[in-house]
Amino acid sequence: MRRQGPGPDPLDALFSPRTVAVVGASDDSAKWGHILARRALEHAGDRTVVLVNRRGGEVLGQPAYPSAAAAAEAHGVAVDLAVLCVPAGAFVASVTDALAAGARALVAITAGLSETGGEGARVEAEALALVRAAGAVLVGPNCLGVVDTATDLQLAHAALPPGDVAVLSQSGNLVLDLADLLAERGLGVSRFVSLGNQADLGLVDLLHACVDHDGTRAVAVYTEDVVDGRAFLDAARALGRAGKPLVLLAPGRTEAAVRSAVSHTGSLTSASMVVDAACAAVGAYRVDHPTQLADLLVALRSPRRMAGDRVAVLTDGGGHGAVAADALASVGLRTPALTGGLTADLEAALWGQATVTNPVDLAGAGEQDAASYARGVDLLLSSDQVDGVLLTGFFGGYSAGESNLAEPELAAAGRIAEVVSAQPKPLVVQTIYPDSPAAQVLHSAGIPVHRDVDRACAVLAGLVEPGVDGHAQALPVPAPPVTDTSYDGARALFSGAGVRFPASMSVAHAAGLESAVDAVGLPVVLKATGRVHKSEGGGVVLGLADLDAVRSAYADLVARLAPPAVSVEAMADPGAGVELIVGTVRDPKFGPVVLVGLGGVFTEVLADTACAIAPVTVGAARGLLTSLQGAPLLLGARGRPPVDLEALADLVARVSLLAAAHPELAELELNPVLAGPSGVLALDARVALDVS
Amino acid sequence: MRRQGPGPDPLDALFSPRTVAVVGASDDSAKWGHILARRALEHAGDRTVVLVNRRGGEVLGQPAYPSAAAAAEAHGVAVDLAVLCVPAGAFVASVTDALAAGARALVAITAGLSETGGEGARVEAEALALVRAAGAVLVGPNCLGVVDTATDLQLAHAALPPGDVAVLSQSGNLVLDLADLLAERGLGVSRFVSLGNQADLGLVDLLHACVDHDGTRAVAVYTEDVVDGRAFLDAARALGRAGKPLVLLAPGRTEAAVRSAVSHTGSLTSASMVVDAACAAVGAYRVDHPTQLADLLVALRSPRRMAGDRVAVLTDGGGHGAVAADALASVGLRTPALTGGLTADLEAALWGQATVTNPVDLAGAGEQDAASYARGVDLLLSSDQVDGVLLTGFFGGYSAGESNLAEPELAAAGRIAEVVSAQPKPLVVQTIYPDSPAAQVLHSAGIPVHRDVDRACAVLAGLVEPGVDGHAQALPVPAPPVTDTSYDGARALFSGAGVRFPASMSVAHAAGLESAVDAVGLPVVLKATGRVHKSEGGGVVLGLADLDAVRSAYADLVARLAPPAVSVEAMADPGAGVELIVGTVRDPKFGPVVLVGLGGVFTEVLADTACAIAPVTVGAARGLLTSLQGAPLLLGARGRPPVDLEALADLVARVSLLAAAHPELAELELNPVLAGPSGVLALDARVALDVS
Repeated sequence: MRRQGPGPDPLDALFSPRTVAVVGASDDSAKWGHILARRALEHAGDRTVVLVNRRGGEVLGQPAYPSAAAAAEAHGVAVDLAVLCVPAGAFVASVTDALAAGARALVAITAGLSETGGEGARVEAEALALVRAAGAVLVGPNCLGVVDTATDLQLAHAALPPGDVAVLSQSGNLVLDLADLLAERGLGVSRFVSLGNQADLGLVDLLHACVDHDGTRAVAVYTEDVVDGRAFLDAARALGRAGKPLVLLAPGRTEAAVRSAVSHTGSLTSASMVVDAACAAVGAYRVDHPTQLADLLVALRSPRRMAGDRVAVLTDGGGHGAVAADALASVGLRTPALTGGLTADLEAALWGQATVTNPVDLAGAGEQDAASYARGVDLLLSSDQVDGVLLTGFFGGYSAGESNLAEPELAAAGRIAEVVSAQPKPLVVQTIYPDSPAAQVLHSAGIPVHRDVDRACAVLAGLVEPGVDGHAQALPVPAPPVTDTSYDGARALFSGAGVRFPASMSVAHAAGLESAVDAVGLPVVLKATGRVHKSEGGGVVLGLADLDAVRSAYADLVARLAPPAVSVEAMADPGAGVELIVGTVRDPKFGPVVLVGLGGVFTEVLADTACAIAPVTVGAARGLLTSLQGAPLLLGARGRPPVDLEALADLVARVSLLAAAHPELAELELNPVLAGPSGVLALDARVALDVS
Repeated sequence: MRRQGPGPDPLDALFSPRTVAVVGASDDSAKWGHILARRALEHAGDRTVVLVNRRGGEVLGQPAYPSAAAAAEAHGVAVDLAVLCVPAGAFVASVTDALAAGARALVAITAGLSETGGEGARVEAEALALVRAAGAVLVGPNCLGVVDTATDLQLAHAALPPGDVAVLSQSGNLVLDLADLLAERGLGVSRFVSLGNQADLGLVDLLHACVDHDGTRAVAVYTEDVVDGRAFLDAARALGRAGKPLVLLAPGRTEAAVRSAVSHTGSLTSASMVVDAACAAVGAYRVDHPTQLADLLVALRSPRRMAGDRVAVLTDGGGHGAVAADALASVGLRTPALTGGLTADLEAALWGQATVTNPVDLAGAGEQDAASYARGVDLLLSSDQVDGVLLTGFFGGYSAGESNLAEPELAAAGRIAEVVSAQPKPLVVQTIYPDSPAAQVLHSAGIPVHRDVDRACAVLAGLVEPGVDGHAQALPVPAPPVTDTSYDGARALFSGAGVRFPASMSVAHAAGLESAVDAVGLPVVLKATGRVHKSEGGGVVLGLADLDAVRSAYADLVARLAPPAVSVEAMADPGAGVELIVGTVRDPKFGPVVLVGLGGVFTEVLADTACAIAPVTVGAARGLLTSLQGAPLLLGARGRPPVDLEALADLVARVSLLAAAHPELAELELNPVLAGPSGVLALDARVALDVS
């Protein structure tokens, strides 16, 4: 985003302009030209603010110039940033004028452009060409403005509280919501950009701009459409390397959310599963609503993360412990029973009435000795049975009122803060008394303190990091393109990638049947090749036990379907394993995505599938398989031996790599894959070229 | 709970005593005898408070009497209520003394009794016998006290805020939590009883005491063990008839929650599914944590309920609409697309840029004309496409600050309040500005107003009422007990209740095979009777196609298993339908419970079952079946015709009634039931006597 042209770097002009022109400034308080002119003047700092109105005269008691060029000339300066609050009909002329005044960055509030299609799109394209020719940048159009609190630039619908969270959003009101929630939590905004139509600067450009921005420690994004998924992944990875968490509020889990998004911006929401996969791939955090976003941003300020899903609950009352265990389960976390030396240590550190299974219930030990809380936290965080700790219940109550336990409780809070800071796992606290002095000690130490147990549990769940295996692998160098998408071609492609199939031989004449049967062994399957869905239309005949049956079935296939060839294949025993589907699709935003699912009702009735951005490692593939609802079937449910999960994960990883190396293929599919205790066989294969 | 004895009614003595004795009063601030003595003195109202300490002297500057009897004599009054804060070793003597002083009600803080088993249980039983012989009542022991805010009786670990919610709880700290949350919401407590060991007064007694209590409008219960489930259902129904909502916080959805509960009170948590079924049966509300409980209590003050799961979202920004749609889905509610006349009416009532599908997005119509909000709410609530409305986003923002839209917004809020009050469906509001004047207008009208969208959605979900079919049916008069639990006996029992089986004939000698085969028709199944699990151990032979095969299989069964008889049955084609399990169990708390599930992986891997308190109506049985995750298989997934759902629901209802009429049976089971497009057949049956 380093553009040529006279004057300052365009992004510096956008976020740190020396001169701002508000074009379309107005005294009519219902107009954006009024709101933004007022904000520009109120937050002028030491910069020059000029107001432009085609009628001239005065606006807000200031002189209004008929053009940005005239304003620049009158002030003897170049305009760095122009904010355009003009009707669509005046858009191109205003852009021309702003560029003539020297503008290196434009923020276009103007609506009625490409989001309406037709003439609006043409006007937007014309303006964009002018901007690019000048080496400038454009935010919007159809946006709500831009904020940089470090430079006191407040050019949006509301003045936002200063802080270090960059907010990039496709929605205006949600940013008001989020800013308010951040301020309540002592956080604020470093930069805010309303994305609008993203004609020039898009989400990915602005993510990259956050990577090196000293004032930004975390990035919050509201988007209904990631647009360029792979570039988004690259930007997210760059943020990750800079140690800046990226939190994504991307609705679309439901059809209704998508309906809302479509009507909102004219953009089609990416399939929600793929967005989840993208977040998993780059270690970004996905949240479901603004409150969860704000809570997680607070927690992410500490470097402590959950390496797994095992939480120890420490409580001072059985009721809070039981409620917390249910609340953890509802966000996908576990409260495993503690065992061995840990329980013995807890028994020694607490008192006789304490419960040490999990939840760990002090059962009055806190009243006897407030230091029990700290000893409990210390032992639990130190244990390899635990990925994080939830302290829930009364803690803080002593210091909240008059009590001779107030001082010991404060001391315990100080000790807890020390214990937590010395190790890498998170402690999250729920207390009836979040404003108590003891709770404030914890809060000041960066320990998330919540009033509500569901909020505390959501934060713990948000802090679970995908394993390093979950991180997206780079796309490989493309392989020579596939041109033969026949069944034999597909088998050859997969075989070349290391996928095993039953023995087979393709025959084009009845005379070849006997030697083919000899080669693959009875019983056999016949498949008429040349059909994408062979099993539809009777193109597959299973379980042929002798040569006569083979001949008869062959004749029938030839008579009915006239296939180019018939594949004679060794018959695998479906009872010998579990059937799966392993495939890839090319997502319009994120490119190749690998999908796994169990066969039968699991995919057809339950939609029990899992997907990941391709390519994936064998470890990530294993995680994908075990995340399936029907995973117990793979691991040995119903009295069966477990399948060879390593071979299956290896196959999934190979297929994902194959898809990534063949951008010309829209889809690859092995269906079914038969996974047994001692290996994995693909029983059918197909590939399809991308014809888009 | 009307007990004989001198003096006032025991429950009046408990909640409205003229004289209270605190036994074990102490100057040691760490002791309960100190806390409760202080509370009793601080909240004495016009009643007499006497302190008892075996050493006499003074406590808290008041005279302390060596016994309750001595205190009563000194004051010339009878003690109505005695609070016992004494060690377990002094318990029986203190009970004897309190009763001698005239106590009609006792609240026993004393711990170390039946919850520890052995000697403690014996002591508790001895004290209980004394209490009952005197016609008095006992709360606890091992409890934390009692509160009645109308009589300013504050005898618990914290003084609770006055209000009209009765709180009955097995946990002490959770009540502090809930009381605080209620107070934040402008609510408070009418009565609080800490249940403790429930030696005498139990949850059910105290629920009944709430039915006629004028000061109580709603009842909140925290319990880890309902103890007597059927009596609980009766009490819940009585509250329902009195128009008093019952909200239940009952952890135990997870194994860890149960672990916590067991260690907490020594009670075994009822299976969580059965608790859900019980709530559904009586229209009680189950919540997962205290915040949800407090939120729902606020919403339940209005009589407006959701008759179904269809929510219309009205928003002033697409972002809030999309996020709300996802949030609704996550609590099991739908945001269906609106159609027909409603969308035309919305288009006419809003403005051209508004979206009218659902979410309905005003898209600036509110800024043009704040009355748009009220028109939108009115049209949506009036529509038969909608069971409730969620207003989400900016509303309130105009009146929250300086704006010429403040007055129109306030007017719109007033109009919304009128619209809502004139009809039976709920409106719930999420707004960035819950403290704004406009939001306060809504709040004052009883419309739930939330800052966070997930809270607003949880309230809407909580307001969904079970259909009238979901309400529990009364237990039937017991039928003559079953004594023959053989396979033939079980079949006869189910057949008598109207369940259909394939044609069958029982044979005890090989000579009977031919006529049996003639009677039922080939192919047949042979079953060795006299075994509970016939399919284990090779007791079932399927698909016998001719008489020779039947003879051979019969000989084999007789040789291997020596069954009392062999059942020759017509073979049903499993491909002709969907296999289910339909059964009943006798829950230790709630009695007969009917369970349905789909066969195969659905029950074995996915635990996809649903249950209800028996007996159920056909309508409730239908609801149970369609609630299954695998329900699409019943409704016609995978290209199959739908099964005869009415016949299947009828069978489930009949089985549930049979179980309810046979209290001597621990379990009844039809497994599998084959449900096809034109009818339902039970393929196997068993019953088991209750031997507990």
